[in-house]
Amino acid sequence: MNSPKPVLIHSVKEMQTICRNLSQTIGFVPTMGYLHEGHLSLVKAAKDKAEIVIVSIYVNPTQFSPNEDLSSYPRDPDRDIQLLSELDVDYIFFPSNEEMYPAGFKTWVAVEEITQILCGKSRSTHFKGVTTIVAKLMNIIDPDFMLLGEKDFQQLKVLQQMGKDLNFSTEIIGCPLIREKDGLAMSSRNKYLSPQERKDALCLHNSLLLAQKLFSEGMTASSKIIAAMRDLIVQNKGRIDYIEVIDTDSLESLDELRSGCRIVLAVYIGKTRLIDNVMIKYYQ
Amino acid sequence: MNSPKPVLIHSVKEMQTICRNLSQTIGFVPTMGYLHEGHLSLVKAAKDKAEIVIVSIYVNPTQFSPNEDLSSYPRDPDRDIQLLSELDVDYIFFPSNEEMYPAGFKTWVAVEEITQILCGKSRSTHFKGVTTIVAKLMNIIDPDFMLLGEKDFQQLKVLQQMGKDLNFSTEIIGCPLIREKDGLAMSSRNKYLSPQERKDALCLHNSLLLAQKLFSEGMTASSKIIAAMRDLIVQNKGRIDYIEVIDTDSLESLDELRSGCRIVLAVYIGKTRLIDNVMIKYYQ
Repeated sequence: MNSPKPVLIHSVKEMQTICRNLSQTIGFVPTMGYLHEGHLSLVKAAKDKAEIVIVSIYVNPTQFSPNEDLSSYPRDPDRDIQLLSELDVDYIFFPSNEEMYPAGFKTWVAVEEITQILCGKSRSTHFKGVTTIVAKLMNIIDPDFMLLGEKDFQQLKVLQQMGKDLNFSTEIIGCPLIREKDGLAMSSRNKYLSPQERKDALCLHNSLLLAQKLFSEGMTASSKIIAAMRDLIVQNKGRIDYIEVIDTDSLESLDELRSGCRIVLAVYIGKTRLIDNVMIKYYQ
Repeated sequence: MNSPKPVLIHSVKEMQTICRNLSQTIGFVPTMGYLHEGHLSLVKAAKDKAEIVIVSIYVNPTQFSPNEDLSSYPRDPDRDIQLLSELDVDYIFFPSNEEMYPAGFKTWVAVEEITQILCGKSRSTHFKGVTTIVAKLMNIIDPDFMLLGEKDFQQLKVLQQMGKDLNFSTEIIGCPLIREKDGLAMSSRNKYLSPQERKDALCLHNSLLLAQKLFSEGMTASSKIIAAMRDLIVQNKGRIDYIEVIDTDSLESLDELRSGCRIVLAVYIGKTRLIDNVMIKYYQ
Protein backbone atom coordinates (compact mmCIF):
# COMPACT_ATOMS: atom_id res chain seq x y z
CA MET A 1 0.00 0.00 0.00
CA ASN A 2 1.38 3.40 -0.91
CA SER A 3 1.43 6.19 1.66
CA PRO A 4 -0.80 9.14 0.84
CA LYS A 5 1.21 11.78 -1.01
CA PRO A 6 2.86 14.09 -0.38
CA VAL A 7 4.57 12.73 2.73
CA LEU A 8 5.36 15.59 5.10
CA ILE A 9 8.79 15.31 6.76
CA HIS A 10 9.97 17.60 9.57
CA SER A 11 13.16 15.84 10.68
CA VAL A 12 16.51 16.31 8.89
CA LYS A 13 17.58 12.80 9.81
CA GLU A 14 14.38 11.22 8.55
CA MET A 15 14.50 13.15 5.26
CA GLN A 16 18.16 12.24 4.75
CA THR A 17 17.56 8.56 5.47
CA ILE A 18 14.62 8.41 3.06
CA CYS A 19 16.62 10.11 0.31
CA ARG A 20 19.71 7.94 0.80
CA ASN A 21 17.55 4.83 0.42
CA LEU A 22 15.71 5.93 -2.73
CA SER A 23 16.92 4.24 -5.89
CA GLN A 24 14.95 6.55 -8.19
CA THR A 25 16.17 9.90 -9.52
CA ILE A 26 15.26 12.87 -7.31
CA GLY A 27 14.14 16.30 -8.51
CA PHE A 28 14.24 18.96 -5.79
CA VAL A 29 12.63 22.40 -5.55
CA PRO A 30 13.72 24.52 -2.56
CA THR A 31 11.13 27.16 -1.58
CA MET A 32 10.27 29.52 1.25
CA GLY A 33 6.60 28.55 0.85
CA TYR A 34 3.62 30.83 0.07
CA LEU A 35 3.69 29.14 -3.29
CA HIS A 36 2.63 30.74 -6.55
CA GLU A 37 2.61 29.67 -10.18
CA GLY A 38 6.33 30.34 -10.42
CA HIS A 39 7.08 27.70 -7.79
CA LEU A 40 4.56 25.31 -9.30
CA SER A 41 6.23 25.61 -12.71
CA LEU A 42 9.46 24.42 -11.05
CA VAL A 43 7.63 21.46 -9.52
CA LYS A 44 6.25 20.56 -12.94
CA ALA A 45 9.74 20.80 -14.45
CA ALA A 46 11.05 18.56 -11.64
CA LYS A 47 8.39 15.98 -12.44
CA ASP A 48 9.50 15.99 -16.07
CA LYS A 49 13.16 15.44 -15.09
CA ALA A 50 12.98 12.99 -12.19
CA GLU A 51 11.08 10.02 -10.81
CA ILE A 52 10.67 11.39 -7.28
CA VAL A 53 9.90 15.06 -6.56
CA ILE A 54 10.74 16.69 -3.23
CA VAL A 55 9.82 20.29 -2.32
CA SER A 56 11.23 22.02 0.75
CA ILE A 57 9.30 24.77 2.52
CA TYR A 58 11.57 26.72 4.83
CA VAL A 59 11.76 30.45 5.47
CA ASN A 60 15.53 30.60 5.99
CA PRO A 61 16.32 33.23 8.64
CA THR A 62 20.01 33.57 7.70
CA GLN A 63 19.25 35.10 4.31
CA PHE A 64 17.33 37.99 5.89
CA SER A 65 19.12 41.01 7.37
CA PRO A 66 17.94 42.31 10.77
CA ASN A 67 16.11 45.16 9.00
CA GLU A 68 14.31 42.88 6.54
CA ASP A 69 10.93 41.17 6.50
CA LEU A 70 11.64 37.78 8.14
CA SER A 71 8.83 37.97 10.70
CA SER A 72 6.28 39.33 8.25
CA TYR A 73 7.27 37.05 5.34
CA PRO A 74 3.98 35.54 4.11
CA ARG A 75 3.24 31.96 5.16
CA ASP A 76 0.35 29.61 4.34
CA PRO A 77 1.56 26.02 4.80
CA ASP A 78 -1.90 24.42 4.53
CA ARG A 79 -2.48 25.98 1.14
CA ASP A 80 1.09 25.08 0.07
CA ILE A 81 0.55 21.43 1.00
CA GLN A 82 -2.76 21.39 -0.87
CA LEU A 83 -1.16 22.83 -4.02
CA LEU A 84 1.73 20.35 -3.90
CA SER A 85 -0.70 17.50 -3.29
CA GLU A 86 -2.55 18.42 -6.49
CA LEU A 87 0.77 18.16 -8.37
CA ASP A 88 1.42 14.69 -6.91
CA VAL A 89 4.65 15.73 -5.17
CA ASP A 90 6.22 12.81 -3.28
CA TYR A 91 7.74 14.50 -0.23
CA ILE A 92 7.52 17.92 1.39
CA PHE A 93 10.47 18.74 3.64
CA PHE A 94 9.27 21.23 6.23
CA PRO A 95 11.92 21.58 8.95
CA SER A 96 11.99 23.88 11.98
CA ASN A 97 14.72 26.44 12.70
CA GLU A 98 15.96 24.17 15.51
CA GLU A 99 16.41 21.34 13.00
CA MET A 100 18.27 23.49 10.48
CA TYR A 101 20.32 25.70 12.80
CA PRO A 102 20.80 23.79 16.06
CA ALA A 103 22.58 25.50 18.97
CA GLY A 104 26.31 25.87 18.28
CA PHE A 105 25.92 26.12 14.51
CA LYS A 106 29.08 27.76 13.07
CA THR A 107 29.62 26.81 9.41
CA TRP A 108 29.02 29.02 6.40
CA VAL A 109 29.33 28.54 2.66
CA ALA A 110 30.14 31.74 0.79
CA VAL A 111 30.70 32.59 -2.86
CA GLU A 112 33.00 35.55 -3.51
CA GLU A 113 32.71 38.42 -6.03
CA ILE A 114 29.38 37.65 -7.72
CA THR A 115 27.62 37.92 -4.34
CA GLN A 116 28.89 41.46 -3.74
CA ILE A 117 27.22 43.09 -6.76
CA LEU A 118 23.57 43.74 -7.75
CA CYS A 119 21.35 42.45 -4.88
CA GLY A 120 24.49 41.80 -2.79
CA LYS A 121 25.22 45.53 -2.59
CA SER A 122 22.13 46.33 -0.54
CA ARG A 123 21.77 42.85 1.00
CA SER A 124 25.35 42.16 2.10
CA THR A 125 24.82 38.88 3.98
CA HIS A 126 21.89 37.60 1.92
CA PHE A 127 23.72 35.24 -0.43
CA LYS A 128 25.83 33.71 2.35
CA GLY A 129 22.56 32.65 3.97
CA VAL A 130 21.27 31.33 0.65
CA THR A 131 24.38 29.32 -0.22
CA THR A 132 24.61 27.87 3.30
CA ILE A 133 21.00 26.71 3.46
CA VAL A 134 21.07 25.30 -0.08
CA ALA A 135 24.33 23.41 0.61
CA LYS A 136 22.60 21.91 3.65
CA LEU A 137 19.47 21.02 1.68
CA MET A 138 21.52 19.43 -1.11
CA ASN A 139 23.40 17.31 1.45
CA ILE A 140 20.15 16.24 3.10
CA ILE A 141 18.28 15.43 -0.11
CA ASP A 142 21.16 14.59 -2.48
CA PRO A 143 19.03 15.39 -5.53
CA ASP A 144 19.94 14.56 -9.11
CA PHE A 145 18.31 17.82 -10.21
CA MET A 146 17.57 21.05 -8.40
CA LEU A 147 15.18 23.46 -10.12
CA LEU A 148 15.42 27.22 -9.54
CA GLY A 149 13.57 30.16 -11.10
CA GLU A 150 15.31 32.70 -13.27
CA LYS A 151 13.41 35.47 -11.48
CA ASP A 152 16.17 35.34 -8.86
CA PHE A 153 18.75 35.35 -11.63
CA GLN A 154 21.74 36.29 -9.49
CA GLN A 155 20.76 33.64 -6.92
CA LEU A 156 20.62 31.04 -9.70
CA LYS A 157 24.12 31.97 -10.91
CA VAL A 158 25.53 32.07 -7.36
CA LEU A 159 24.13 28.61 -6.59
CA GLN A 160 25.39 27.20 -9.89
CA GLN A 161 28.84 28.60 -9.05
CA MET A 162 28.70 27.00 -5.59
CA GLY A 163 27.54 23.69 -7.03
CA LYS A 164 30.41 23.67 -9.52
CA ASP A 165 33.10 24.86 -7.08
CA LEU A 166 32.17 22.44 -4.29
CA ASN A 167 31.60 19.53 -6.72
CA PHE A 168 28.01 18.86 -5.79
CA SER A 169 26.77 16.11 -8.08
CA THR A 170 23.38 17.83 -8.40
CA GLU A 171 22.53 19.42 -11.76
CA ILE A 172 21.22 22.93 -11.01
CA ILE A 173 18.68 23.99 -13.61
CA GLY A 174 17.25 27.46 -14.18
CA CYS A 175 13.60 27.71 -15.28
CA PRO A 176 11.80 30.67 -16.89
CA LEU A 177 10.38 33.49 -14.80
CA ILE A 178 6.57 33.31 -14.57
CA ARG A 179 4.47 36.49 -14.81
CA GLU A 180 0.96 37.52 -13.88
CA LYS A 181 -1.28 38.19 -16.91
CA ASP A 182 -0.46 41.90 -16.79
CA GLY A 183 3.30 41.21 -16.71
CA LEU A 184 4.21 41.55 -13.02
CA ALA A 185 6.79 38.91 -12.12
CA MET A 186 5.25 36.44 -9.66
CA SER A 187 6.66 36.79 -6.14
CA SER A 188 5.48 35.95 -2.64
CA ARG A 189 6.31 39.56 -1.78
CA ASN A 190 3.63 40.87 -4.20
CA LYS A 191 1.24 40.21 -1.30
CA TYR A 192 2.69 43.28 0.44
CA LEU A 193 1.47 45.64 -2.33
CA SER A 194 -1.58 47.88 -1.83
CA PRO A 195 -4.00 48.08 -4.81
CA GLN A 196 -2.32 51.31 -6.01
CA GLU A 197 1.18 49.86 -5.52
CA ARG A 198 0.13 46.74 -7.41
CA LYS A 199 -0.56 49.03 -10.40
CA ASP A 200 2.65 51.01 -9.92
CA ALA A 201 4.64 47.75 -9.76
CA LEU A 202 3.99 47.16 -13.45
CA CYS A 203 6.73 49.74 -14.11
CA LEU A 204 9.39 47.06 -13.51
CA HIS A 205 8.24 44.88 -16.39
CA ASN A 206 7.27 47.87 -18.52
CA SER A 207 10.77 49.31 -18.16
CA LEU A 208 12.23 45.99 -19.33
CA LEU A 209 9.85 45.93 -22.30
CA LEU A 210 10.97 49.48 -23.11
CA ALA A 211 14.61 48.39 -23.01
CA GLN A 212 13.93 45.54 -25.42
CA LYS A 213 12.03 47.95 -27.70
CA LEU A 214 14.87 50.51 -27.72
CA PHE A 215 17.40 47.76 -28.42
CA SER A 216 15.26 46.42 -31.27
CA GLU A 217 15.18 49.97 -32.70
CA GLY A 218 18.99 50.07 -32.69
CA MET A 219 19.93 51.66 -29.38
CA THR A 220 22.77 49.76 -27.68
CA ALA A 221 24.36 52.11 -25.10
CA SER A 222 23.54 50.77 -21.64
CA SER A 223 23.63 54.30 -20.17
CA LYS A 224 20.94 55.57 -22.57
CA ILE A 225 18.69 52.56 -22.14
CA ILE A 226 19.04 52.59 -18.35
CA ALA A 227 18.23 56.34 -18.34
CA ALA A 228 15.00 55.69 -20.25
CA MET A 229 14.11 52.86 -17.84
CA ARG A 230 14.80 55.13 -14.85
CA ASP A 231 12.45 57.79 -16.19
CA LEU A 232 9.64 55.31 -16.63
CA ILE A 233 10.12 53.79 -13.16
CA VAL A 234 10.40 57.13 -11.36
CA GLN A 235 7.25 58.40 -13.11
CA ASN A 236 5.47 55.42 -11.57
CA LYS A 237 6.74 56.19 -8.05
CA GLY A 238 9.31 53.40 -8.07
CA ARG A 239 12.51 53.93 -6.06
CA ILE A 240 15.40 52.30 -7.90
CA ASP A 241 17.91 50.13 -6.02
CA TYR A 242 19.76 49.17 -9.20
CA ILE A 243 19.35 48.66 -12.93
CA GLU A 244 22.21 46.85 -14.65
CA VAL A 245 22.96 45.41 -18.06
CA ILE A 246 24.97 42.25 -17.41
CA ASP A 247 26.75 39.41 -19.11
CA THR A 248 24.69 36.28 -18.47
CA ASP A 249 27.68 34.13 -17.50
CA SER A 250 29.96 36.45 -15.52
CA LEU A 251 27.27 38.90 -14.27
CA GLU A 252 29.68 41.70 -15.22
CA SER A 253 28.21 45.06 -16.21
CA LEU A 254 28.15 45.76 -19.92
CA ASP A 255 28.47 49.21 -21.50
CA GLU A 256 26.66 48.02 -24.61
CA LEU A 257 23.65 45.75 -24.93
CA ARG A 258 24.04 42.66 -27.10
CA SER A 259 21.73 39.80 -27.90
CA GLY A 260 21.78 37.29 -25.03
CA CYS A 261 22.69 39.81 -22.36
CA ARG A 262 20.33 40.34 -19.45
CA ILE A 263 18.91 43.44 -17.80
CA VAL A 264 18.33 42.99 -14.08
CA LEU A 265 16.76 45.44 -11.66
CA ALA A 266 15.56 45.92 -8.11
CA VAL A 267 12.98 48.60 -7.35
CA TYR A 268 11.11 49.61 -4.21
CA ILE A 269 7.38 50.08 -4.68
CA GLY A 270 6.38 51.71 -1.41
CA LYS A 271 8.24 49.66 1.19
CA THR A 272 8.31 46.50 -0.94
CA ARG A 273 11.51 45.62 -2.77
CA LEU A 274 10.78 43.81 -6.05
CA ILE A 275 13.18 42.32 -8.61
CA ASP A 276 12.76 41.44 -12.26
CA ASN A 277 14.89 40.70 -15.31
CA VAL A 278 14.73 39.85 -18.99
CA MET A 279 17.09 38.43 -21.54
CA ILE A 280 17.58 40.88 -24.41
CA LYS A 281 17.22 39.34 -27.87
CA TYR A 282 17.41 40.25 -31.51
CA TYR A 283 14.04 39.79 -33.10
CA GLN A 284 13.71 39.17 -36.84
CA MET B 1 38.31 -9.77 -14.60
CA ASN B 2 39.10 -7.31 -11.86
CA SER B 3 41.25 -4.26 -12.57
CA PRO B 4 44.59 -4.19 -10.80
CA LYS B 5 44.29 -2.32 -7.54
CA PRO B 6 44.55 0.40 -6.55
CA VAL B 7 42.97 2.19 -9.51
CA LEU B 8 44.55 5.61 -9.90
CA ILE B 9 42.04 8.37 -10.76
CA HIS B 10 43.05 11.91 -11.73
CA SER B 11 39.72 13.34 -12.93
CA VAL B 12 37.09 14.73 -10.55
CA LYS B 13 34.32 13.72 -12.91
CA GLU B 14 35.59 10.15 -13.27
CA MET B 15 36.04 9.74 -9.51
CA GLN B 16 32.56 11.13 -8.84
CA THR B 17 30.94 8.90 -11.45
CA ILE B 18 32.65 5.80 -10.04
CA CYS B 19 31.60 6.64 -6.49
CA ARG B 20 28.01 7.42 -7.42
CA ASN B 21 27.72 4.03 -9.10
CA LEU B 22 29.20 1.97 -6.26
CA SER B 23 26.64 0.06 -4.24
CA GLN B 24 29.13 -0.88 -1.50
CA THR B 25 29.96 1.23 1.55
CA ILE B 26 32.88 3.61 1.04
CA GLY B 27 35.59 4.42 3.56
CA PHE B 28 37.65 7.49 2.67
CA VAL B 29 41.01 8.73 3.91
CA PRO B 30 42.04 12.23 2.69
CA THR B 31 45.81 12.77 2.72
CA MET B 32 48.46 15.13 1.38
CA GLY B 33 50.64 12.12 0.51
CA TYR B 34 54.15 11.32 1.73
CA LEU B 35 52.45 8.61 3.71
CA HIS B 36 53.62 7.28 7.06
CA GLU B 37 52.29 4.73 9.56
CA GLY B 38 49.77 7.29 10.82
CA HIS B 39 48.10 7.47 7.40
CA LEU B 40 48.31 3.71 6.97
CA SER B 41 46.55 3.17 10.31
CA LEU B 42 43.66 5.25 8.93
CA VAL B 43 43.57 3.12 5.79
CA LYS B 44 43.43 -0.03 7.92
CA ALA B 45 40.60 1.46 9.99
CA ALA B 46 38.77 2.32 6.75
CA LYS B 47 39.10 -1.28 5.58
CA ASP B 48 37.56 -2.45 8.85
CA LYS B 49 34.59 -0.06 8.46
CA ALA B 50 33.78 -0.19 4.75
CA GLU B 51 33.71 -2.45 1.71
CA ILE B 52 35.53 -0.05 -0.61
CA VAL B 53 38.49 2.10 0.48
CA ILE B 54 39.47 5.30 -1.31
CA VAL B 55 42.52 7.40 -0.42
CA SER B 56 43.07 10.88 -1.83
CA ILE B 57 46.56 12.29 -2.29
CA TYR B 58 46.43 16.04 -2.80
CA VAL B 59 48.67 18.76 -1.40
CA ASN B 60 45.96 21.39 -1.03
CA PRO B 61 47.42 24.84 -1.75
CA THR B 62 44.60 26.80 -0.09
CA GLN B 63 45.47 25.56 3.40
CA PHE B 64 49.00 26.96 3.17
CA SER B 65 49.73 30.64 3.82
CA PRO B 66 52.06 32.46 1.40
CA ASN B 67 54.87 32.19 3.98
CA GLU B 68 54.42 28.46 4.53
CA ASP B 69 55.97 25.34 3.02
CA LEU B 70 53.68 24.55 0.07
CA SER B 71 56.46 24.27 -2.54
CA SER B 72 58.80 22.29 -0.28
CA TYR B 73 56.11 20.03 1.19
CA PRO B 74 57.51 16.49 0.82
CA ARG B 75 56.12 14.38 -2.01
CA ASP B 76 56.75 10.78 -3.09
CA PRO B 77 53.76 9.54 -5.06
CA ASP B 78 55.40 6.33 -6.33
CA ARG B 79 56.16 5.18 -2.80
CA ASP B 80 52.64 6.25 -1.67
CA ILE B 81 51.03 4.18 -4.41
CA GLN B 82 53.20 1.19 -3.50
CA LEU B 83 52.24 1.44 0.18
CA LEU B 84 48.52 1.74 -0.64
CA SER B 85 48.79 -1.15 -3.06
CA GLU B 86 50.17 -3.34 -0.27
CA LEU B 87 47.10 -2.46 1.82
CA ASP B 88 44.77 -3.44 -1.03
CA VAL B 89 43.24 0.04 -1.34
CA ASP B 90 40.61 0.17 -4.11
CA TYR B 91 41.03 3.68 -5.51
CA ILE B 92 43.58 6.46 -5.18
CA PHE B 93 42.22 9.90 -6.07
CA PHE B 94 45.16 12.00 -7.21
CA PRO B 95 43.84 15.21 -8.80
CA SER B 96 45.75 18.22 -10.15
CA ASN B 97 45.31 21.79 -8.93
CA GLU B 98 43.52 22.59 -12.20
CA GLU B 99 40.97 19.86 -11.46
CA MET B 100 40.37 20.99 -7.89
CA TYR B 101 40.56 24.78 -8.31
CA PRO B 102 39.68 25.57 -11.92
CA ALA B 103 39.91 29.17 -13.14
CA GLY B 104 37.11 31.30 -11.67
CA PHE B 105 36.85 29.29 -8.44
CA LYS B 106 35.12 31.48 -5.82
CA THR B 107 33.43 29.36 -3.12
CA TRP B 108 34.64 28.79 0.43
CA VAL B 109 33.40 26.78 3.37
CA ALA B 110 34.34 28.27 6.72
CA VAL B 111 33.73 27.27 10.32
CA GLU B 112 33.62 30.15 12.82
CA GLU B 113 35.10 30.44 16.34
CA ILE B 114 36.89 27.09 16.74
CA THR B 115 39.06 27.89 13.70
CA GLN B 116 40.33 31.14 15.25
CA ILE B 117 42.04 29.58 18.28
CA LEU B 118 45.06 27.27 18.72
CA CYS B 119 46.54 26.62 15.23
CA GLY B 120 44.11 29.17 13.77
CA LYS B 121 45.84 32.01 15.64
CA SER B 122 49.10 31.67 13.74
CA ARG B 123 47.56 30.10 10.61
CA SER B 124 44.60 32.41 10.04
CA THR B 125 43.38 31.04 6.68
CA HIS B 126 44.48 27.43 7.19
CA PHE B 127 41.19 25.90 8.30
CA LYS B 128 39.17 27.68 5.60
CA GLY B 129 41.36 25.87 3.07
CA VAL B 130 40.93 22.58 4.91
CA THR B 131 37.14 22.79 5.22
CA THR B 132 36.76 23.85 1.59
CA ILE B 133 38.87 21.02 0.16
CA VAL B 134 37.29 18.41 2.41
CA ALA B 135 33.77 19.58 1.51
CA LYS B 136 34.77 19.16 -2.15
CA LEU B 137 36.27 15.72 -1.56
CA MET B 138 33.19 14.57 0.37
CA ASN B 139 30.95 15.73 -2.48
CA ILE B 140 33.12 13.94 -5.04
CA ILE B 141 33.47 10.67 -3.12
CA ASP B 142 30.27 10.70 -1.00
CA PRO B 143 31.83 8.35 1.55
CA ASP B 144 29.93 6.55 4.30
CA PHE B 145 32.96 6.99 6.58
CA MET B 146 35.83 9.46 6.56
CA LEU B 147 38.80 8.65 8.79
CA LEU B 148 41.04 11.35 10.24
CA GLY B 149 43.93 11.21 12.67
CA GLU B 150 43.72 12.71 16.14
CA LYS B 151 47.20 14.17 15.68
CA ASP B 152 45.49 17.11 13.96
CA PHE B 153 42.98 17.25 16.78
CA GLN B 154 41.64 20.73 16.03
CA GLN B 155 41.28 19.82 12.35
CA LEU B 156 39.27 16.73 13.32
CA LYS B 157 36.91 18.79 15.48
CA VAL B 158 36.55 21.51 12.83
CA LEU B 159 35.67 18.96 10.15
CA GLN B 160 33.21 17.17 12.44
CA GLN B 161 31.57 20.55 13.12
CA MET B 162 31.38 21.25 9.38
CA GLY B 163 29.98 17.79 8.67
CA LYS B 164 27.27 18.24 11.29
CA ASP B 165 26.39 21.85 10.39
CA LEU B 166 26.18 21.23 6.63
CA ASN B 167 24.39 17.88 7.07
CA PHE B 168 26.94 15.77 5.25
CA SER B 169 25.79 12.17 5.54
CA THR B 170 29.40 10.99 6.04
CA GLU B 171 30.37 9.75 9.50
CA ILE B 172 33.65 11.47 10.41
CA ILE B 173 35.76 9.25 12.65
CA GLY B 174 38.87 10.23 14.61
CA CYS B 175 41.63 7.60 14.94
CA PRO B 176 44.52 7.51 17.45
CA LEU B 177 47.72 9.43 16.85
CA ILE B 178 50.61 7.14 15.84
CA ARG B 179 54.12 7.71 17.23
CA GLU B 180 57.62 6.69 16.31
CA LYS B 181 59.17 4.19 18.73
CA ASP B 182 60.81 7.02 20.68
CA GLY B 183 57.50 8.89 21.01
CA LEU B 184 57.70 11.54 18.27
CA ALA B 185 54.27 11.97 16.66
CA MET B 186 54.43 10.78 13.06
CA SER B 187 54.23 13.63 10.55
CA SER B 188 55.28 14.19 6.98
CA ARG B 189 57.01 17.34 8.24
CA ASN B 190 59.41 15.29 10.42
CA LYS B 191 61.41 14.94 7.20
CA TYR B 192 62.48 18.58 7.57
CA LEU B 193 64.33 17.87 10.85
CA SER B 194 68.15 17.66 11.00
CA PRO B 195 69.55 14.80 13.13
CA GLN B 196 69.99 17.16 16.10
CA GLU B 197 66.50 18.64 15.62
CA ARG B 198 65.06 15.12 15.43
CA LYS B 199 66.40 14.58 18.96
CA ASP B 200 65.22 17.99 20.18
CA ALA B 201 61.74 17.28 18.77
CA LEU B 202 61.18 14.64 21.45
CA CYS B 203 60.51 17.52 23.83
CA LEU B 204 56.93 17.79 22.47
CA HIS B 205 55.97 14.31 23.56
CA ASN B 206 58.13 14.44 26.68
CA SER B 207 56.37 17.62 27.80
CA LEU B 208 53.00 15.88 27.37
CA LEU B 209 54.25 12.89 29.37
CA LEU B 210 55.39 15.31 32.06
CA ALA B 211 51.93 16.91 32.14
CA GLN B 212 50.28 13.52 32.57
CA LYS B 213 52.77 12.67 35.35
CA LEU B 214 52.12 15.93 37.22
CA PHE B 215 48.35 15.44 36.89
CA SER B 216 48.68 11.87 38.20
CA GLU B 217 50.61 13.26 41.18
CA GLY B 218 47.72 15.60 41.98
CA MET B 219 48.60 18.86 40.20
CA THR B 220 45.57 20.26 38.33
CA ALA B 221 46.24 23.99 37.70
CA SER B 222 46.72 24.44 33.94
CA SER B 223 49.06 27.41 34.53
CA LYS B 224 51.46 25.33 36.65
CA ILE B 225 51.47 22.35 34.34
CA ILE B 226 51.94 24.53 31.25
CA ALA B 227 54.82 26.35 32.98
CA ALA B 228 56.56 23.02 33.63
CA MET B 229 56.01 21.98 29.99
CA ARG B 230 57.40 25.32 28.77
CA ASP B 231 60.57 24.85 30.80
CA LEU B 232 61.15 21.40 29.36
CA ILE B 233 60.54 22.53 25.77
CA VAL B 234 62.67 25.67 26.01
CA GLN B 235 65.56 23.66 27.52
CA ASN B 236 65.41 21.54 24.34
CA LYS B 237 65.56 24.58 22.03
CA GLY B 238 61.86 24.41 21.13
CA ARG B 239 60.10 27.70 20.34
CA ILE B 240 56.53 27.50 21.62
CA ASP B 241 53.63 28.65 19.44
CA TYR B 242 51.01 27.55 21.97
CA ILE B 243 50.33 25.08 24.75
CA GLU B 244 46.70 24.82 25.83
CA VAL B 245 44.60 22.65 28.10
CA ILE B 246 41.24 22.28 26.33
CA ASP B 247 37.83 20.73 26.65
CA THR B 248 37.63 17.90 24.12
CA ASP B 249 34.20 18.90 22.77
CA SER B 250 34.23 22.71 22.76
CA LEU B 251 38.02 23.21 22.44
CA GLU B 252 37.68 25.91 25.13
CA SER B 253 40.67 26.56 27.38
CA LEU B 254 40.44 25.05 30.84
CA ASP B 255 41.99 26.56 33.98
CA GLU B 256 42.09 23.13 35.63
CA LEU B 257 42.95 19.77 34.16
CA ARG B 258 40.39 17.00 34.48
CA SER B 259 40.28 13.44 33.24
CA GLY B 260 39.28 13.40 29.56
CA CYS B 261 40.60 16.87 28.80
CA ARG B 262 43.29 17.26 26.17
CA ILE B 263 46.58 19.15 26.09
CA VAL B 264 47.46 20.42 22.64
CA LEU B 265 50.61 22.20 21.54
CA ALA B 266 52.51 23.59 18.58
CA VAL B 267 56.26 24.06 18.80
CA TYR B 268 58.91 25.17 16.32
CA ILE B 269 62.00 22.95 16.24
CA GLY B 270 64.38 25.02 14.13
CA LYS B 271 62.18 26.21 11.26
CA THR B 272 59.81 23.24 11.45
CA ARG B 273 56.47 23.69 13.18
CA LEU B 274 55.31 20.47 14.85
CA ILE B 275 52.07 19.69 16.69
CA ASP B 276 51.17 17.04 19.22
CA ASN B 277 48.50 16.32 21.82
CA VAL B 278 47.40 13.81 24.43
CA MET B 279 44.23 13.07 26.31
CA ILE B 280 44.79 13.38 30.08
CA LYS B 281 43.50 10.44 32.11
CA TYR B 282 43.23 9.24 35.64
CA TYR B 283 45.30 6.09 36.06
CA GLN B 284 44.50 3.62 38.82
